[in-house]
Amino acid sequence: MTDETAAAAANEDGRRLRGRRTRESILEAAMDLASVEGLDGLTIGRLAAELGMSKSGLFAHFGSKEELQLATIDAARAIFIEEVIEPARKAERGLPRLEALLDHWFTYKRGEIFYGGCFFDAIRTEYDSREASPVKEAIRNDFQTWMELLANRVRSAQAAGHLDPDEDPEQLAFELDALGGAANLRFQLNRDEAAFERARRASRARLAALTVH
Amino acid sequence: MTDETAAAAANEDGRRLRGRRTRESILEAAMDLASVEGLDGLTIGRLAAELGMSKSGLFAHFGSKEELQLATIDAARAIFIEEVIEPARKAERGLPRLEALLDHWFTYKRGEIFYGGCFFDAIRTEYDSREASPVKEAIRNDFQTWMELLANRVRSAQAAGHLDPDEDPEQLAFELDALGGAANLRFQLNRDEAAFERARRASRARLAALTVH
Repeated sequence: MTDETAAAAANEDGRRLRGRRTRESILEAAMDLASVEGLDGLTIGRLAAELGMSKSGLFAHFGSKEELQLATIDAARAIFIEEVIEPARKAERGLPRLEALLDHWFTYKRGEIFYGGCFFDAIRTEYDSREASPVKEAIRNDFQTWMELLANRVRSAQAAGHLDPDEDPEQLAFELDALGGAANLRFQLNRDEAAFERARRASRARLAALTVH
Repeated sequence: MTDETAAAAANEDGRRLRGRRTRESILEAAMDLASVEGLDGLTIGRLAAELGMSKSGLFAHFGSKEELQLATIDAARAIFIEEVIEPARKAERGLPRLEALLDHWFTYKRGEIFYGGCFFDAIRTEYDSREASPVKEAIRNDFQTWMELLANRVRSAQAAGHLDPDEDPEQLAFELDALGGAANLRFQLNRDEAAFERARRASRARLAALTVH
């Protein structure tokens, strides 16, 4: 490689890196905006104004509102996996791993990783009664994956002999999931500091009543 | 009263009645639209198109988007009182009245009285992380009234000797309320027929464990 082609390659790398960084900045702003205003509030124009970019500059990264919405969901999913799912995997299999999952999940919601609280709670309710669309499909898939994970963690705790094997895993997953949504709503709407403590207390009591001694 | 003044009064009454009916039609459409698209989707132009009215005709009834949003919340509140709160009052004081309240509440949500499911679940999540406004204030007040009613029904059941007096009424109200929100979301998002049965099952089990025999 001559010095010239090396320099050209470095420039090319630099451009790609800058492009990637711009894309990341756009998605950061998009996740925060959507957590407050919903995915519908995510117009190219609105986001361009927020970031001080031109609409055409933003269009170079995302060709349509829908593409931007789907990329924002992808980015939020990556953060959820990093903040909630991965750290809980370090806990011992069975009840400890289920408890760790709930613990990281409540901490993620309380910590307002996204400006308006849980990104997924916001967009699920926004889209729940709308017509079918690729965005709604992505939201449904993520929710299903989450509910299956929760139910599977319950099954593992039952298989390990930690929890009553007669409990319906999907029923328990439904009840545990309900607590997180209720706490997030109260914390966002009323800044109710007790909300997550209530959710933790309820989930602890529910699991304690099922614990095999 | 002469025949002429009687006729004029009848005309005047007729105009008022028609005006009231038009207002009611607008609010019916507004509640349905908001239950799907949120209160933000409730623009005068959008609603006028939906109803085949002129924007100026709609402006004659509601001077601004905010006025329309607040009137829509008022109308939905009246329906909630009629469908959930009033019928539950007929049950015997104590645990039966708490159970009747939950029963009518789940039936209201499952019945999709509003096109997109529970109107209040939709707008609470929509506004929870937004800046203070008269609309957000109305949403917060309604939610507080509902949570106080639930906690008071728990207190009455405790005072009547039906439920364990050591249970924290606000904790129990939080948990019962969480079930309704979770069921509504699943029913709207996935048409999950089991969702309300899960919510009923969880609330029955929670109350049964607290019942004083």
